[in-house]
Amino acid sequence: MKYELIYWPGLQGRGEFVRLALEEGGADYTDTALVPESDGGGIPAVMSVLSDATTDRPPLAPPVLRAGKRLIAQSSNILLFLGGRLGLAPRDEAGKLWTHQLQLTIADFANEIHDSHHPIASSLYYEQQKGAAKRRSKHLLDERIPKFLGYFEQVTVRNTQRGNWLVGAKLSYVDLSMAQVMAGLIFAFPKYMRRSLRDYPCLQSIHDRVFARRRIKAYARSRRRIPFNDYGIFRHYPELDQ
Amino acid sequence: MKYELIYWPGLQGRGEFVRLALEEGGADYTDTALVPESDGGGIPAVMSVLSDATTDRPPLAPPVLRAGKRLIAQSSNILLFLGGRLGLAPRDEAGKLWTHQLQLTIADFANEIHDSHHPIASSLYYEQQKGAAKRRSKHLLDERIPKFLGYFEQVTVRNTQRGNWLVGAKLSYVDLSMAQVMAGLIFAFPKYMRRSLRDYPCLQSIHDRVFARRRIKAYARSRRRIPFNDYGIFRHYPELDQ
Repeated sequence: MKYELIYWPGLQGRGEFVRLALEEGGADYTDTALVPESDGGGIPAVMSVLSDATTDRPPLAPPVLRAGKRLIAQSSNILLFLGGRLGLAPRDEAGKLWTHQLQLTIADFANEIHDSHHPIASSLYYEQQKGAAKRRSKHLLDERIPKFLGYFEQVTVRNTQRGNWLVGAKLSYVDLSMAQVMAGLIFAFPKYMRRSLRDYPCLQSIHDRVFARRRIKAYARSRRRIPFNDYGIFRHYPELDQ
Repeated sequence: MKYELIYWPGLQGRGEFVRLALEEGGADYTDTALVPESDGGGIPAVMSVLSDATTDRPPLAPPVLRAGKRLIAQSSNILLFLGGRLGLAPRDEAGKLWTHQLQLTIADFANEIHDSHHPIASSLYYEQQKGAAKRRSKHLLDERIPKFLGYFEQVTVRNTQRGNWLVGAKLSYVDLSMAQVMAGLIFAFPKYMRRSLRDYPCLQSIHDRVFARRRIKAYARSRRRIPFNDYGIFRHYPELDQ
């Protein structure tokens, strides 16, 4: 099946969790973020999907995956859909739900990371909420990152199957998302992560092994991978990296 | 099957989305929040599930549903699991994912509502972040509530099947959660909701019809329903209700 990923141009954002799965799964897909406006891509393509009054199951926000006639939104829901189709999730119901549970926990974590630089409103600039961002980031670094990363480290340790992945014996979409979160944290908080990374050897290993995979490596080196920047979930503001 | 809901005592919180489904579905369940500590319930019961080092698929946080030997966490994931079993979701894959997508959007909305009174950190008291809470709440009321409620109103309008529910022709777990969000907003922001409610006639109707259902009505009147209070997602601080 041919897929279309509908997402904002210029940032990785929550679309990146979907892109990594599409790339690792070898899916045939187009990405509106990379298609010029003159060829039907870019912001107008996203807006037209969101504002189409004839859609009977409308998405609230991107990322949206078009699969045939269906439009599927919410990054974790898209991965639930793609997991089985791309061979990136266990096949049994319990394994599927467990993988999804971890993905939802990553989504919660990503929300908290985002809100550390935007604690008051997404509609305001960072500079308009810098004081609150400093306070919130301190809690993120002191309490929340250790809680979430400590949890995922434990999940990997307790996975009784060989392979040192989060779920079962094989890489799943949740390993891809975890690697992306690690990469994002290292970009956003380099000082903090330099001194913390040793506490999470399993997660560091997942990060390294994911980005060394043939397809992901080729993707990360290609122009399809939008570099980290200060528009996405992970932003590097040195004053927040304590 | 007999279920056990593992959740903190004293607040509705995210456990309430699960409770409403268990109640409407006529499930046989116990709720640790209602079991005295001396009988194995309460906070120690939650802590023992979270800290059990022998669990190979550990949950990060409640709510957790015990179903036989399985522990399932993340409220939306629990509802995905329960939906089919309790007759509260469509049976076809597309309908299941669509219902889940709406539930994930409700979960995002609930997070934003929660963070309006706790924009800096959950670990701080409201009084320690009151200034930021006032700023964030203004954005919640001016931008975010209209965006989310306007969206769900549209979803109901565009549902081509009779019944005036969010999904298909029958009540689903997402209607229960939507009714809970409406009740919570009316509790937290009575002034604001008094002037806004007329914009969302479908959602008001879902709220009224859900709480008039035989099982939900009996539940809401029972001691099993913890009243709204200032410990949960929805809190009434008059200074935030502008």
